[in-house]
Amino acid sequence: MNIGLIGATGYAGIELVKLLDKHPVFKLRAIGSRSYENTPYASLTGYPFKESYTLIGLDAFENLLPELDLVFLSLPHGTSMDWVKKVNDAGIPVIDLSGDFRLEDVALYEEWYQCSHTASGLLGQSTYGLCETITQMHNIIANPGCYPTASLLGLLPLAHNHLLSDKTIIIDAKSGMSGAGKKLTASTLYCESNESMRPYGTGMHRHTPEIETMLSKYGSTNTKILFSPSVVPMERGILASIYIQMDGSLSLSAIYDLYLAFYKNKPFVRLIDKMPETKWVKGTNYCDIHLVMDDRTNTLVIHSVIDNLIKGASGQAIQNANLLFELDETLGLL
Amino acid sequence: MNIGLIGATGYAGIELVKLLDKHPVFKLRAIGSRSYENTPYASLTGYPFKESYTLIGLDAFENLLPELDLVFLSLPHGTSMDWVKKVNDAGIPVIDLSGDFRLEDVALYEEWYQCSHTASGLLGQSTYGLCETITQMHNIIANPGCYPTASLLGLLPLAHNHLLSDKTIIIDAKSGMSGAGKKLTASTLYCESNESMRPYGTGMHRHTPEIETMLSKYGSTNTKILFSPSVVPMERGILASIYIQMDGSLSLSAIYDLYLAFYKNKPFVRLIDKMPETKWVKGTNYCDIHLVMDDRTNTLVIHSVIDNLIKGASGQAIQNANLLFELDETLGLL
Amino acid sequence: MNIGLIGATGYAGIELVKLLDKHPVFKLRAIGSRSYENTPYASLTGYPFKESYTLIGLDAFENLLPELDLVFLSLPHGTSMDWVKKVNDAGIPVIDLSGDFRLEDVALYEEWYQCSHTASGLLGQSTYGLCETITQMHNIIANPGCYPTASLLGLLPLAHNHLLSDKTIIIDAKSGMSGAGKKLTASTLYCESNESMRPYGTGMHRHTPEIETMLSKYGSTNTKILFSPSVVPMERGILASIYIQMDGSLSLSAIYDLYLAFYKNKPFVRLIDKMPETKWVKGTNYCDIHLVMDDRTNTLVIHSVIDNLIKGASGQAIQNANLLFELDETLGLL
Amino acid sequence: MNIGLIGATGYAGIELVKLLDKHPVFKLRAIGSRSYENTPYASLTGYPFKESYTLIGLDAFENLLPELDLVFLSLPHGTSMDWVKKVNDAGIPVIDLSGDFRLEDVALYEEWYQCSHTASGLLGQSTYGLCETITQMHNIIANPGCYPTASLLGLLPLAHNHLLSDKTIIIDAKSGMSGAGKKLTASTLYCESNESMRPYGTGMHRHTPEIETMLSKYGSTNTKILFSPSVVPMERGILASIYIQMDGSLSLSAIYDLYLAFYKNKPFVRLIDKMPETKWVKGTNYCDIHLVMDDRTNTLVIHSVIDNLIKGASGQAIQNANLLFELDETLGLL
Repeated sequence: MNIGLIGATGYAGIELVKLLDKHPVFKLRAIGSRSYENTPYASLTGYPFKESYTLIGLDAFENLLPELDLVFLSLPHGTSMDWVKKVNDAGIPVIDLSGDFRLEDVALYEEWYQCSHTASGLLGQSTYGLCETITQMHNIIANPGCYPTASLLGLLPLAHNHLLSDKTIIIDAKSGMSGAGKKLTASTLYCESNESMRPYGTGMHRHTPEIETMLSKYGSTNTKILFSPSVVPMERGILASIYIQMDGSLSLSAIYDLYLAFYKNKPFVRLIDKMPETKWVKGTNYCDIHLVMDDRTNTLVIHSVIDNLIKGASGQAIQNANLLFELDETLGLL
Repeated sequence: MNIGLIGATGYAGIELVKLLDKHPVFKLRAIGSRSYENTPYASLTGYPFKESYTLIGLDAFENLLPELDLVFLSLPHGTSMDWVKKVNDAGIPVIDLSGDFRLEDVALYEEWYQCSHTASGLLGQSTYGLCETITQMHNIIANPGCYPTASLLGLLPLAHNHLLSDKTIIIDAKSGMSGAGKKLTASTLYCESNESMRPYGTGMHRHTPEIETMLSKYGSTNTKILFSPSVVPMERGILASIYIQMDGSLSLSAIYDLYLAFYKNKPFVRLIDKMPETKWVKGTNYCDIHLVMDDRTNTLVIHSVIDNLIKGASGQAIQNANLLFELDETLGLL
Repeated sequence: MNIGLIGATGYAGIELVKLLDKHPVFKLRAIGSRSYENTPYASLTGYPFKESYTLIGLDAFENLLPELDLVFLSLPHGTSMDWVKKVNDAGIPVIDLSGDFRLEDVALYEEWYQCSHTASGLLGQSTYGLCETITQMHNIIANPGCYPTASLLGLLPLAHNHLLSDKTIIIDAKSGMSGAGKKLTASTLYCESNESMRPYGTGMHRHTPEIETMLSKYGSTNTKILFSPSVVPMERGILASIYIQMDGSLSLSAIYDLYLAFYKNKPFVRLIDKMPETKWVKGTNYCDIHLVMDDRTNTLVIHSVIDNLIKGASGQAIQNANLLFELDETLGLL
Repeated sequence: MNIGLIGATGYAGIELVKLLDKHPVFKLRAIGSRSYENTPYASLTGYPFKESYTLIGLDAFENLLPELDLVFLSLPHGTSMDWVKKVNDAGIPVIDLSGDFRLEDVALYEEWYQCSHTASGLLGQSTYGLCETITQMHNIIANPGCYPTASLLGLLPLAHNHLLSDKTIIIDAKSGMSGAGKKLTASTLYCESNESMRPYGTGMHRHTPEIETMLSKYGSTNTKILFSPSVVPMERGILASIYIQMDGSLSLSAIYDLYLAFYKNKPFVRLIDKMPETKWVKGTNYCDIHLVMDDRTNTLVIHSVIDNLIKGASGQAIQNANLLFELDETLGLL
């Protein structure tokens, strides 16, 4: 199968190329780029790819569309939506790693992303690509955000069992530096970020409505998320620590059973019986989840870890592509 | 003034020696050690101390007690209490960096520390040395834990104003690696801990009752803490993110005023108007606090950062010593 | 093909299991362990292996020998030699990752390793497994040291062309922390090693005679190595910077041609036209080499980088196994 | 004494302000800035300074010159020379942290720095400020480069004793990331530089002629330096490993004696009897030096470590200022 990609030089894009390079069915045929037309890809990354790729311009990419079976977009939000439309108009499925199609409600999108949506007519024709929840796939797949992936996988078994309604849920999420992307900013310099950590955007992060929307789809009514991220000095990995006030009626063991049932036959979610370390999922598409019930305060704590660049971006994109073509979900990911 | 110290080779002990070395009034006269009798101190640390110290054995240390004005103990809990008793019996003030005298309730101590208290008669004669709260000093000063220092400085203005009663407060605290101390364990090896983070001891950490006890002293009734720590790959620094459900009756600005009033004339607590980074307090005795009110969920979020080895240990110990002798609180700490 | 392994819990051993796990031909049938008999392997590492392995005791391992086609040993030097003998006596090929069979000269071994060799009769029946140099394979393969791999791949084209005789060559090699292994020592704790670097063992490292021996085999007479390693705060990677006084008769371009000829058809050595970064070879079996001629001083500088755990240990072991069974050299390594 | 500074926001500048803040005699009266006129200094750094500084524009700075006793310049080379001239014309001593006045030979400057020198008439009126070598001070002091400081302190006792003539000396120097400064470049982003190391500019670094010039002043004739730097993932610290072919006539002990004699009464150079770690000098003005004689190859190896931002920049600048005003050399630096 012939795959196209626009946006191969960011951290998620590089990981996506690595995964495609090893995939037994997908073949990366075209990498489009605004800035690096005709540049050998290896010269931009240093990574030893099996295949030698050369980036092509966006016009050339558009001309190639008829030969492609699927397009991945790893572009900034706001920029991505035009290409989603173009690829969709050409009748080709598209997996969008940006935030542009994650919220179905255009007003909510414009409020949190502070930009107008130029393809809002397509919002209803897209699938939110959290793989473990997909029942039907449209031709436009909105690959979830990294934080929502870790958070929702930790929360959905509860939402599905109607245990979250009328609650405020606190998500304290810690992320490695690659979540900030590759753009040049003072705060992402080595000397500014090493040996330090800092919170940012408490209560104001765009992933808040993404999480709330999905919980609501699963039957949670009036569930509010306080999303509070921090950045820590490491390259990749997310640890989402989720706090939920319970009423004491369910034992930890009963709650575990809900999780086991929900994730039956889901190969990439692992319920583990000890505190997770982000290194255990580094470079993999796994999400490791551990539950703690604090009886002193009746609080359920869910620790959920992923690799933000794999299960939180490129790996899940491949998993979505596998699902789209009804291949084994794990192809190229183990 | 002549100072004695037992426990100079752990991370807090080394910082304490550095601070004493620069202090204009205190002079480190004796360093006692079980393991390194007659060893030049510099050979154990590499740090360029102004003074040349040689460790002495514990018997020699005990003989020197009459010549000392103050003793610092930086020993493991369980071990420290015997020395507190010895020094106190000799009529000399002692600042204990262990957990042995932080909880006045011996049953609480024995439950959380899982060891029996051999000097419980002295529990009532000790001062909990969170400097910003001290009104009267006993001859035994229990230097607070690192997490409780960051957490309580974030919470006390609210407790003082009776805003925490009947609440469960979530403290998600992230710590650098030096909090784990210098003992040889697989999990603190560079290759095991770099580029990874992990939660530990959710709901079960010994600092939980220390925080609750102090809140209770400040008039909070039935306030419960869910304390949830994680370790991140950096040497030093604590970020405590504290989540409190409010009722919406107080504006953020009104709450800030409570903090400003509480910390008036407290030189080491800085209320700041942006998200704190742990590097801003690295190597200092400051605690930086920032408040966020999330109106969507009526949650107050307090981000509090300290250097765990300074304000969370050795710096606060010096600050306590300054207070004890009615010196300028900041002496040797700026 | 059925593979056995003793020594699966060190850093090289873990990488070896990961590589075997993905190898299309080799199947890891037995992992022997002195300390972890009957322990599930995943519980020791956290890594998500495709297969579930359980460690077996050494007696059980020995009983299984007849069913194995190849045994890898990732044991400390001194310990490994007995197992090499046992496996070899059973008529099964063995790839030894320790230093026990790297030096053919037993006196040289005993001088540099400070232990006696209990299987010296087998020294002449082993192959030094630097894959790019192998012409004939014995049943005992001594997998090279990490530093010698990076150093020799940088030097052998010159030795082969008789350009190193009567010279002193300086190798300033920098290594990540995993080179120090997983044993518990103060110097490998996170807080001791992060944000610091240090030289060690200048002129006294065991890899010195290993490099000299191999250069001598390639026709260098009276070539001396001054090997000078340092450790830097990162997990994996070696950068060997090699300095050779030249006589000015050969241009840089002529020297590059010697390298190109020597490494023709060697898929894992890449001659690159810019300064190498260790991250380019991280997680791979590549060795990247760049040459600089400093005309001011007539010094040739060779910068050679590898991943010490892959090309410097487990990856090269797999490559040796592929060669042994006349499989494609790159199988399971791309 | 009233001190002025231009260039307070780079890494060396920030350290300089910290040191001035604690200095008992110098008082920082004016900080000039092109970009941050009227900006509170703390808002740019986060560091808790005792004093509150506000940056002023360059015109305002120039007007203040008559009130100043000394000016520090921490500006890029090429930019600094104009300000050196201005301050010098105003009759005020100036300590220049750039490379503009380190080479007396204008042709050598223009060849290695690739820019023309607009104040070459002042080159002969400046002092090369390697404090341990200064015999007479001019009003213009060229603060040495970080690499030359570590390298020259390792080499000068030999040059002084005429042991380096007609030799090629190899300096393999490893530096932390702060040496690259604060400018926004892809290669200094956290995710690009963490967990990787790389050589750069082998044989082409500007510090080469600075080292050679100084050796020549000390009587070395025809001594050539091959300077070969690498960058390692840590914030600060330099380890210079220096390799010199000896003739075997001097024992290590005899060489140590030369060093002891040369550094008698030099408080910031410490000859140590074990391998140095950069963390031992971190945050200090010390240079730690250790010597190894490799008898197998008759090579002397000198390992020299400094904190590149302190002894390699701001600390040495303060030391120079102390010397200039005939204060105790160590004032404000211990």
